[in-house]
Amino acid sequence: MVQKSTPARSDTPPKAAPDSTRRSEKSRRAIYEAALALVGEVGYQKVTIEGIAARAGVGKQTIYRWWSSKADVVMEAFVDRSEQAAEAVPPGQEYAIPDTGDLAADLKFVLRATVDELLDPAFEAPYRGLAAEGLVNEELGRRYVAKLLEPSLQLYVQRLRAAQDAGQVRADIDPRIALELFVSPLAQRWLQYAGPISYEYTDTLVDYALHGIASPGGNQR
Amino acid sequence: MVQKSTPARSDTPPKAAPDSTRRSEKSRRAIYEAALALVGEVGYQKVTIEGIAARAGVGKQTIYRWWSSKADVVMEAFVDRSEQAAEAVPPGQEYAIPDTGDLAADLKFVLRATVDELLDPAFEAPYRGLAAEGLVNEELGRRYVAKLLEPSLQLYVQRLRAAQDAGQVRADIDPRIALELFVSPLAQRWLQYAGPISYEYTDTLVDYALHGIASPGGNQR
Repeated sequence: MVQKSTPARSDTPPKAAPDSTRRSEKSRRAIYEAALALVGEVGYQKVTIEGIAARAGVGKQTIYRWWSSKADVVMEAFVDRSEQAAEAVPPGQEYAIPDTGDLAADLKFVLRATVDELLDPAFEAPYRGLAAEGLVNEELGRRYVAKLLEPSLQLYVQRLRAAQDAGQVRADIDPRIALELFVSPLAQRWLQYAGPISYEYTDTLVDYALHGIASPGGNQR
Repeated sequence: MVQKSTPARSDTPPKAAPDSTRRSEKSRRAIYEAALALVGEVGYQKVTIEGIAARAGVGKQTIYRWWSSKADVVMEAFVDRSEQAAEAVPPGQEYAIPDTGDLAADLKFVLRATVDELLDPAFEAPYRGLAAEGLVNEELGRRYVAKLLEPSLQLYVQRLRAAQDAGQVRADIDPRIALELFVSPLAQRWLQYAGPISYEYTDTLVDYALHGIASPGGNQR
């Protein structure tokens, strides 16, 4: 969620002449859209290179020229979608969580944007299809994490490190674990239909994570 | 995780005579084991009533006499497994999270037991198979949550309410959300291969959730 990283492309279209480059870009985009739509509609397992090619209106060979497997083309379609989403973000904020100096406000802002994304039908079906397969297909699951999930989580790590530098987060906190206190509950509620998601909910998660649930001066610890 | 609730069975075997009851119980158990094994081996979608019957060594009619659908028999097999696991817990602690008065210790104890369960291969494959289907099959997903996930989460709600009564957790905290700060990160790391799980990790989650990650007296909130 909030995937705004820019992983390197595993391949690039041939750059023979402007016209062929434009044709290639158009095919590439059609292939990505077909891959996302099919994962959402029939599930990852039933998607085939042939099916993607047919829906995209290109030859199978076009896909095999640029990608070596179904997993490659599908994963790159999702990475590309994240990049497209990142380009819609206001200039100056790309690829980062805002740092206004107010950690709670910045985290709430980004999590509210994630709520919007999760409730967007165009996002929902493809991501569910990919995530479901990743649960039972460990190789795909680990690619999903490495290419899509972890890069987005690292943005929170950076923001929390800045907050540590500013003295707002305790120095002994591991940012990579801390971010899970607000990111994972949202992910689980959405993925597993485990509960409703809303701005109020994610705001609450941020408040609890920052200040803890224990009574001040209680006998905990 | 830590499913120790006792949902009502949707059906019970016929209780004609002791012998037939014993035969029924044996068949029921064989059916549950077959259902769990098959979900783990081939995934929920490919499991059939016929396949469960064949593996359990019973007739299809035996299954249809007790359950009306594949979803029913599979879900009840998982609920039964949770009940079996609960019976292995020391007497007096069944169906509850311990309350020694030390909230942090009690939560860490239960989460460590959950780590053990998640790392148990006999648990892993069936639960992954069921959870994966629940992501893309909303009706099954919601049954999974209602029958398996939510009852286990309510145990944390009870324990956190007791801690509120004891003045250890702030009165304005919603226990149903608070528990997600330590339960959901573990669930996501396990389900999505998003990171390693260990006792140290879950202990850390409990400490962060109880005390927060913000510096005391920081300018947050």
